Amino acid sequence: MHVGERKIDHARINLIDYGPEELLEMQFDSVADCQSCAPTQPIQWLNMYGLHEPEILAEIGRRFDLHPLVLEDILNTDQRPKLDEYEGYLFLVARFFDYDDKTMRISSEQVSLVVGRNFVLTFQEKPTGNFDPVRDRLRQNRGLIRKSGADYLAYALLDTIVDRYFGVLEGLTERAERLEEELMEKPSPRVLETLHHLKGETLTLRRAVWPLREVVNALTRSNSFFGPGVQPYLRDIYDHTVHIIESLEAIRDLIAGLLDIYLSTVSNRVNQEVRLLTVIAMIFLPSTLLAGIFGMNFHRMPLLDNPNGFALIIGLMLGVAITLALVFWRRKWLD
Amino acid sequence: MHVGERKIDHARINLIDYGPEELLEMQFDSVADCQSCAPTQPIQWLNMYGLHEPEILAEIGRRFDLHPLVLEDILNTDQRPKLDEYEGYLFLVARFFDYDDKTMRISSEQVSLVVGRNFVLTFQEKPTGNFDPVRDRLRQNRGLIRKSGADYLAYALLDTIVDRYFGVLEGLTERAERLEEELMEKPSPRVLETLHHLKGETLTLRRAVWPLREVVNALTRSNSFFGPGVQPYLRDIYDHTVHIIESLEAIRDLIAGLLDIYLSTVSNRVNQEVRLLTVIAMIFLPSTLLAGIFGMNFHRMPLLDNPNGFALIIGLMLGVAITLALVFWRRKWLD
Amino acid sequence: MHVGERKIDHARINLIDYGPEELLEMQFDSVADCQSCAPTQPIQWLNMYGLHEPEILAEIGRRFDLHPLVLEDILNTDQRPKLDEYEGYLFLVARFFDYDDKTMRISSEQVSLVVGRNFVLTFQEKPTGNFDPVRDRLRQNRGLIRKSGADYLAYALLDTIVDRYFGVLEGLTERAERLEEELMEKPSPRVLETLHHLKGETLTLRRAVWPLREVVNALTRSNSFFGPGVQPYLRDIYDHTVHIIESLEAIRDLIAGLLDIYLSTVSNRVNQEVRLLTVIAMIFLPSTLLAGIFGMNFHRMPLLDNPNGFALIIGLMLGVAITLALVFWRRKWLD
Amino acid sequence: MHVGERKIDHARINLIDYGPEELLEMQFDSVADCQSCAPTQPIQWLNMYGLHEPEILAEIGRRFDLHPLVLEDILNTDQRPKLDEYEGYLFLVARFFDYDDKTMRISSEQVSLVVGRNFVLTFQEKPTGNFDPVRDRLRQNRGLIRKSGADYLAYALLDTIVDRYFGVLEGLTERAERLEEELMEKPSPRVLETLHHLKGETLTLRRAVWPLREVVNALTRSNSFFGPGVQPYLRDIYDHTVHIIESLEAIRDLIAGLLDIYLSTVSNRVNQEVRLLTVIAMIFLPSTLLAGIFGMNFHRMPLLDNPNGFALIIGLMLGVAITLALVFWRRKWLD
Amino acid sequence: MHVGERKIDHARINLIDYGPEELLEMQFDSVADCQSCAPTQPIQWLNMYGLHEPEILAEIGRRFDLHPLVLEDILNTDQRPKLDEYEGYLFLVARFFDYDDKTMRISSEQVSLVVGRNFVLTFQEKPTGNFDPVRDRLRQNRGLIRKSGADYLAYALLDTIVDRYFGVLEGLTERAERLEEELMEKPSPRVLETLHHLKGETLTLRRAVWPLREVVNALTRSNSFFGPGVQPYLRDIYDHTVHIIESLEAIRDLIAGLLDIYLSTVSNRVNQEVRLLTVIAMIFLPSTLLAGIFGMNFHRMPLLDNPNGFALIIGLMLGVAITLALVFWRRKWLD
Repeated sequence: MHVGERKIDHARINLIDYGPEELLEMQFDSVADCQSCAPTQPIQWLNMYGLHEPEILAEIGRRFDLHPLVLEDILNTDQRPKLDEYEGYLFLVARFFDYDDKTMRISSEQVSLVVGRNFVLTFQEKPTGNFDPVRDRLRQNRGLIRKSGADYLAYALLDTIVDRYFGVLEGLTERAERLEEELMEKPSPRVLETLHHLKGETLTLRRAVWPLREVVNALTRSNSFFGPGVQPYLRDIYDHTVHIIESLEAIRDLIAGLLDIYLSTVSNRVNQEVRLLTVIAMIFLPSTLLAGIFGMNFHRMPLLDNPNGFALIIGLMLGVAITLALVFWRRKWLD
Repeated sequence: MHVGERKIDHARINLIDYGPEELLEMQFDSVADCQSCAPTQPIQWLNMYGLHEPEILAEIGRRFDLHPLVLEDILNTDQRPKLDEYEGYLFLVARFFDYDDKTMRISSEQVSLVVGRNFVLTFQEKPTGNFDPVRDRLRQNRGLIRKSGADYLAYALLDTIVDRYFGVLEGLTERAERLEEELMEKPSPRVLETLHHLKGETLTLRRAVWPLREVVNALTRSNSFFGPGVQPYLRDIYDHTVHIIESLEAIRDLIAGLLDIYLSTVSNRVNQEVRLLTVIAMIFLPSTLLAGIFGMNFHRMPLLDNPNGFALIIGLMLGVAITLALVFWRRKWLD
Repeated sequence: MHVGERKIDHARINLIDYGPEELLEMQFDSVADCQSCAPTQPIQWLNMYGLHEPEILAEIGRRFDLHPLVLEDILNTDQRPKLDEYEGYLFLVARFFDYDDKTMRISSEQVSLVVGRNFVLTFQEKPTGNFDPVRDRLRQNRGLIRKSGADYLAYALLDTIVDRYFGVLEGLTERAERLEEELMEKPSPRVLETLHHLKGETLTLRRAVWPLREVVNALTRSNSFFGPGVQPYLRDIYDHTVHIIESLEAIRDLIAGLLDIYLSTVSNRVNQEVRLLTVIAMIFLPSTLLAGIFGMNFHRMPLLDNPNGFALIIGLMLGVAITLALVFWRRKWLD
Repeated sequence: MHVGERKIDHARINLIDYGPEELLEMQFDSVADCQSCAPTQPIQWLNMYGLHEPEILAEIGRRFDLHPLVLEDILNTDQRPKLDEYEGYLFLVARFFDYDDKTMRISSEQVSLVVGRNFVLTFQEKPTGNFDPVRDRLRQNRGLIRKSGADYLAYALLDTIVDRYFGVLEGLTERAERLEEELMEKPSPRVLETLHHLKGETLTLRRAVWPLREVVNALTRSNSFFGPGVQPYLRDIYDHTVHIIESLEAIRDLIAGLLDIYLSTVSNRVNQEVRLLTVIAMIFLPSTLLAGIFGMNFHRMPLLDNPNGFALIIGLMLGVAITLALVFWRRKWLD
Repeated sequence: MHVGERKIDHARINLIDYGPEELLEMQFDSVADCQSCAPTQPIQWLNMYGLHEPEILAEIGRRFDLHPLVLEDILNTDQRPKLDEYEGYLFLVARFFDYDDKTMRISSEQVSLVVGRNFVLTFQEKPTGNFDPVRDRLRQNRGLIRKSGADYLAYALLDTIVDRYFGVLEGLTERAERLEEELMEKPSPRVLETLHHLKGETLTLRRAVWPLREVVNALTRSNSFFGPGVQPYLRDIYDHTVHIIESLEAIRDLIAGLLDIYLSTVSNRVNQEVRLLTVIAMIFLPSTLLAGIFGMNFHRMPLLDNPNGFALIIGLMLGVAITLALVFWRRKWLD
């Protein structure tokens, strides 16, 4: 048995050939390395990383008798999740999501599954280790996975994909709640952009989960490849996707509410500042008029000769200003 | 017959074994305490508090032949309401809601039901006494409950759950109406946050009732566990859930309307205050100009020599100011 | 034949026992008064006012073999319109609406109908005379009503209920149109509250008509109690409910449009007032500066010695002010 | 053959009795005028103008065996478009629309059609000439109309009705586009009312076309009166109604967008005007302070004795004002 | 074999008569030129440019036995995409879209397809070269196209049409993202109009793709003309249309978000400018009052005799102004 070298810049094929009793694991760089390796166990799982070598993919297509459109869809990694039924196998497209809390960016990677009666093929752009837990369960013969068919393996892989969404969801929720706290305390001017960005990421995620829900729902209905024993597990995944969609709606509602609050808060704050400044100007107004009045050049004016005139007027100015300030302070216009 | 001690920090099992004639009630701390207690009556209701001891749950699962996914869903108390049909029993997840009027917080707790042909299992996180009315009706043999099957018991429990929603609804409605009154009279600056919070709670409740309605609706369609005699009662619960959803929509509409009113009220109020201040400044303007004019240093200026000049000008100032004040008062700009 | 006294504070039962040839009408205070009165004609219509004496209702329930849930729903007068099919009869809940133009309040009262193959039971909270036209048609043997079965009677009663909605609708439409006119001319500050209130009433009505439409639609589908001869009449009622819902949508759209106009009008008006005041201040500005300039104490300043200096400067002030006023008037900023 | 006199204030009946070979056309004032005129050709089209003489309508109803509800619906000219199937004929209600570009008012008139296997009855409120093109095609034996059955005639009439909507649509679109241009250039203050009005008219039209689409769709499904040869024509009308609805949605979207633009434009314009005025006041501010400073009465002040002091200060004032104006002009605050 | 001349101002017919072995290509100006050319190969594709010569179209209609409504729909180039099934052929209407990045205008052209069992007819308004890739594949016998039937040809043409949408979509997305960047940096006043325009174009495209999706979906259901071998390809096109619609929704959401950001940004910016100006006026206020006070004409006033009085007051003025400026700078009101 030949096990190929690991190279990052090459496409890499991982083949697990297993049954309840035995498990064989092989890795190749090219299909030529495994010219003669025929299946020896009931179920085969072939995973391929790296899609930049289409001739390897074409070779796999020939071996498993895949439709040209399937190969095309695997290579075109900008697909929305979907399920196509072909003669002899089901073809599924889904997406792995990642959330980077620092940049608040969601990144995603397409994963294609071909589910036959005794084989599962998976195609990914680069090695991510996302399927490692399933591989470990196979190797260690934990749970039902070795005793069940290819349908249970496909379920386990789908479950892994859907579970990843919860992590992304958690990141988004946390971010939205941190924004909520920030808004209630002291909003920074970049809140609007952050809200806009977060809303966009939520919508992106939603656009990927919505069709995935349909895919899983369709799987629970078409029973040709997924046996009755796996149906409850598929329904469980379906419940998870519905739960994810509802959480996304909750985040969307939260963001919409925050946007409303932000806009009205900012608008009110600026308005109140303008009011505060106008109020202060108002306090100076009577004093300025008084100064103008006693700056007039009439020959006969009261108080001018009075030695305490100046002090009286200054006192009057202060009195008026303080009175006004008190009035405005009572009306809570000096906040 | 052994009745176990009550301990808060332990899981507690309450078993009611009943028929039209007789009722036996038992409580255990662990399943080992009831190794030998076999059902002696037609119908059994087992209620379990405390989910932090999964081995007890696993034991119950083995006795009643529950699917591993059911046990998983019971332990995962963050589920949305759902209905899964398994061979031999139905599995239902619902939520109890509580509304604390002071903090305006809604809290909820998951309750899982397993309905078989002659048993009902209920699982709750902590003892709340929510099912006590049903227990009393069983003990006192009131109504049809002892004469009917497990389906009627399941109906009675669901009815208890749905009835609790009306209390929460009432709390939310009252709060919204108090906010409405406050808004119409004198809005406090925290109204916006309160509205935002109330809206969030309404949405949370809605997200729980919506799938519950679907669950009850599905029950009225699948007749394998709920007999025709219980169907009218299920339709009654269904009507209640529809009623709750419509009331939630009404609250949501009310809150949206209040938000609109609040925003426009606040914006208008600040605008009117700025207008008021501008109007007052306007009243001072001509007097200031007059003072400036008679403060000019021209050698020949009218009125300066006039002994009543000062009084005349001060009179003119007052006259202009009063005239302007009257004009603005008529235009209702001094409100 | 015994006819009971009319008392407002007692429940009152009105029984009409009729066929194509004959009609017997009886009124009781209690069911005991009619212990022996058996049906002598093909069709019976029993109407009951006042639901505060449940034992009378229970007695009726026993005679006509009504399900306990039906009696419960009749007493619980906060139901949404619904249709439940029981063995031997249909149970309908609907609402009568009233609109008080002065308080702009909509009030409503529940009416429950039980339609059997040869009887109709109606239950109302208080005597309103709403069903009097139907009673008159029965007494005077007008139209098809005496010649037709219980289904036609039920249709006639439903028709009476639905026709009442048109009156309420008219009141709301009129009110909304009066508000529209007021808004276009001179909006009062209470417009916002009125709009909010009107919107709430529209939504209340909508929430009652929407399920009523479903009830009528369901009646046209289930043919066990309503014969083919009555079907066109039911479709006619269905068309009416659809018409009412569309009118409510129209009112809702109108109110939403008025709200937009009101908010933007108010905001614009205040903004324009602030602009007007700023413009006026602007007109005073150069004159104030001129006065300040010629109030400076330089030893050598032009014009001060000139005997016409003062007049010249005052003229300049006026000239500048008039020029500015003209400029602003042209720009339409003095509106 | 008797042809009745034309009177505007009387109901008028026009009867066309035709087949592939021959066509007889008659007009009456009252049905009595045509006591003896029996159909002599395969297909009859009876058109009636004026619904204020119900006894004529009743007579027609008796002759063609119409249901009382049909007669009631014909007289009640405030119906929404609908289709009712009776034994022996179909009953259709539709509306003719007119758009007056000057008043921007949409007016509409109900037209009722009764389609039997060998007759078509049409009822209108007043003579409008809307059906004249169909009449001409019949008289001149153009196209398939004389060779086909009553179903083709009914199609031709419906087609005429639907075609009229395109004209109204064009008027609304043109008006909306003219408003768009006006908004982009210089919005008048009445734009808001015009938009509100236009939106209302669009909604009115929409409420009439939506059920009409359903009517036509139902016709393509029920094949008892419309033969397979006419089906493609009905589908054609159906496509037209869908097209009209989409155009109405487009107008609605356009109006909503215009409203947003108008509101933000107005708000921004007033804000910018206020900013402009504030900027101008700002330019005067330092000069006013300078004038105040040199108007102080200190015994020893610089520049006062300087013969060029006044000129220097005036120069300083001008310099500061021009500098500020330049700064603001650069910041584009003087637009 | 006659090949007609190419003239732009004439209708032009291109006929490709092909089978797995042979391909004949002919071009005519008028149908008369091909009086005698009968099909010699299994499949025929007739493409016609220029619809201003209806008699040629009528001649084609007669040859292929097309329904008059089909010819009418081909000529009426303002149709929405649709699918009509006639006896012997399917009739499809779709649209080619073009996006001009400079004017940001979307232009579109109707293309009509008639798909029979062994022929495909396509009708376009003007020669665009859109179908050239399909023609080349036919001529060079690449892929399955020559070996498959008329259904595969129709698929290839539809695929070409749908692929064009992706280019338009890319243009719109790019434009929207450029606008987003511009908004985040420095919004120009024409952003609002651009957003409005872009939104309109998105809606136009959406209105064309939505029914196209329905057309393709209907094709995958009706199997009379499209064989099972072509079904996966049709599902592929269907996935593309769904993808396009989702991308359009994403653009729409993005534009709506940008509109919100733009409006609040503009409003905030103007508000902050007004605040800035008010703050500056505030800084001048105390100095102006001080100047007024020391310009009063009291006989006994402090500091006036003091030789440093003027300097002291000027210093005080500067001190107050600088202190205020610092306070406002700290509050970030001088941004």
